[in-house]
Amino acid sequence: MIPTVVIVGAGFGGLRVARALRRAPVQVVLVDRNNYHLFQPLLYQVATAGLEPEEIAKPARAVLRGQKNFDFRMIEVTRVDFAAKRLDTTAGPIAYDFLVLAPGGETNFFGLASLQRHGLGLKDIPDAITIRNHVLTCFEQAMLEPDAEKRRALLTFIVVGGGPTGVEMAGALSELIRLVLVKDYPRLNIKDVRILLLEATDKLLPALPERLREAAGKTLWRKYVEVRFGATVADFDGRQAHLKSGEIIPAQTVIWAAGVRAAPLTATLGLAPARQGRIPVEPTLQLAGHPEVFIIGDAAYREQDGEPLPMVAPVAIQMGESVARNIARQLRGQPLEPFRYHDQGTLATIGRNAAVAHVFGLQLSGFPAWVMWLVVHIIQLIGFRNKLFVLLNWAWDYFFYERAARLITRD
Amino acid sequence: MIPTVVIVGAGFGGLRVARALRRAPVQVVLVDRNNYHLFQPLLYQVATAGLEPEEIAKPARAVLRGQKNFDFRMIEVTRVDFAAKRLDTTAGPIAYDFLVLAPGGETNFFGLASLQRHGLGLKDIPDAITIRNHVLTCFEQAMLEPDAEKRRALLTFIVVGGGPTGVEMAGALSELIRLVLVKDYPRLNIKDVRILLLEATDKLLPALPERLREAAGKTLWRKYVEVRFGATVADFDGRQAHLKSGEIIPAQTVIWAAGVRAAPLTATLGLAPARQGRIPVEPTLQLAGHPEVFIIGDAAYREQDGEPLPMVAPVAIQMGESVARNIARQLRGQPLEPFRYHDQGTLATIGRNAAVAHVFGLQLSGFPAWVMWLVVHIIQLIGFRNKLFVLLNWAWDYFFYERAARLITRD
Repeated sequence: MIPTVVIVGAGFGGLRVARALRRAPVQVVLVDRNNYHLFQPLLYQVATAGLEPEEIAKPARAVLRGQKNFDFRMIEVTRVDFAAKRLDTTAGPIAYDFLVLAPGGETNFFGLASLQRHGLGLKDIPDAITIRNHVLTCFEQAMLEPDAEKRRALLTFIVVGGGPTGVEMAGALSELIRLVLVKDYPRLNIKDVRILLLEATDKLLPALPERLREAAGKTLWRKYVEVRFGATVADFDGRQAHLKSGEIIPAQTVIWAAGVRAAPLTATLGLAPARQGRIPVEPTLQLAGHPEVFIIGDAAYREQDGEPLPMVAPVAIQMGESVARNIARQLRGQPLEPFRYHDQGTLATIGRNAAVAHVFGLQLSGFPAWVMWLVVHIIQLIGFRNKLFVLLNWAWDYFFYERAARLITRD
Repeated sequence: MIPTVVIVGAGFGGLRVARALRRAPVQVVLVDRNNYHLFQPLLYQVATAGLEPEEIAKPARAVLRGQKNFDFRMIEVTRVDFAAKRLDTTAGPIAYDFLVLAPGGETNFFGLASLQRHGLGLKDIPDAITIRNHVLTCFEQAMLEPDAEKRRALLTFIVVGGGPTGVEMAGALSELIRLVLVKDYPRLNIKDVRILLLEATDKLLPALPERLREAAGKTLWRKYVEVRFGATVADFDGRQAHLKSGEIIPAQTVIWAAGVRAAPLTATLGLAPARQGRIPVEPTLQLAGHPEVFIIGDAAYREQDGEPLPMVAPVAIQMGESVARNIARQLRGQPLEPFRYHDQGTLATIGRNAAVAHVFGLQLSGFPAWVMWLVVHIIQLIGFRNKLFVLLNWAWDYFFYERAARLITRD
């Protein structure tokens, strides 16, 4: 009997494991509650009407279509029975010989119920569509609102979190409004529009060297994004954001890019989690006491050089490659290799011609960083068709100052 | 004071009125509950994962961006007070000097409650996304279903109605399944898949001459669509379709393309409707007794040569042009001109290289009709960007047998 490797999650990590096992003497079963792999780093562009969901996502079956030892199932995992080597799912049990848990992460509202209810996260496609609809609806409602104060609240957009997601979101939102929507709403007073980027610490993009952090901050200011340091949202009722300092900001929109935690599945495993609900793993990414179980990506907790590994795509991808190699070694009876993350750098874009990049020891900002950002993201997108359509969209938007996906499709 | 022309509905008719009045000495206010104009003739391609919603829709503000005398409001009209010349809306009242009612149509389930609940209509973007998600989910569930009978029901797709929408839907669905999905589900037995096209009369595409109707029927058979004449669905509980004949077909999907009626707004006007809830209008498309009110498109009932005008885009467009001219004539004190519809023909596509066309007296089928269909639809799409992206998508799908939009994005 060939052993079965069950992979939970078709994100960056899970997909990489499935691909890397294509010639291994195993049967691969990939399960996910969605039928697609999502290129999360460009999700903020869907939220700001620059790209369509279909351009940054690809059906998992299509990605791995040619792979003989591959099977996909669109199901949700409800429980893992490590002793019986079995998953309970919405479509019955699945037995495994090897299990790779790569369920990813979700928005971390840190228990703030009001933000969970009224704030907008940005982790999957429905999130992005919700933000897009919400922002565009705010503009439509502002055009109908006679009360000046209420109109300004409709046009005040708060982005929480100064990491790459928050910075990119704030920059893209500013460009959507100041380059595109301004043409759709000629009677709108652009001075009524405010975009605030709130960061609890005193640093944007903390992973970057100081020179690039400053360049990022300056670029945001030039794009009329008000960056506030030491600012934390304590409460939000959908009309007013209450900061910890006591300040009240009337705003209809809070986009929450301030935290990620492991997906809810990790809480059902009966294992003691570390920070952000992540499950501690051995240096080989195995679960202690279960050599046949690997945990990778946002759901895994592992420190390197005294720091926890960040919850980003490159970590998940490299973990996926390591696990595929280790499963092959385990089958051959060889000792497993410990995982080590090789940081290839950080990139963040803040709009047209503007980005910061710290890659291969190089520190770039402005136009060269932006070009690098474009190239890196186009290369990483899965499938030639997605690459082509994203590139065409970007080129069109770049030259014509347009965003095609400005439809309000849900209420 | 310049008179205000309020247009309700940003469909083919309403948009045409707004555009045609761009140089008239009036203020144009276009209202719609959505922020976009939708190119409905290609909606079935969104439902079958060939196109994205954004490619066949364009924000109303963007369409009429350059027009000085134009204002758009995203609101819902709740009531019309013809005596006071005022609309009640979700955002307060709007006064008008001229009113053009172009609210369009909706799916007509003919009072069949079970079909209203479980059947899938195809009139707007959420409908199309629902069909796409439903069809793809049926395939995912079929892969998990051990019971052969239940699996066949999951893979049985009933399309009701042999008009252009039903024929195009059935053809596109067959190609999605037999050219694309078959590659995604290599373990699927394609013989389990059934697509039925049920038509109550004994004719497909009744507007076409017999030769073309037969060509359409043959093409559908070649695409493994089972066409049944004299077949009416009386009841559908989501698992079984009960035909009027007593036959029961186990199926999870009924796509309802069997009828259209005027949008619900027409029922609130306090006017006696004709067939399909449409409001009878004068030869000038005015409402009797209200020379300042025009009704056009699917909501208007008008006979020509003893036949009611069909509920199709060309009628709405020509009506819109006529109304814009008549409003200008009325302002100049000239007598109004009666409306006359000039039928330019019928086109329907049944898949790659296959269509039927009856245009300018020409009867075409097969490849030439298909090319004509492509050209006509590309020309009519609003905006160069939409034309370009639709053409690229079609070209890609044509050469690579792909459909990009195969994501299940809602549940």
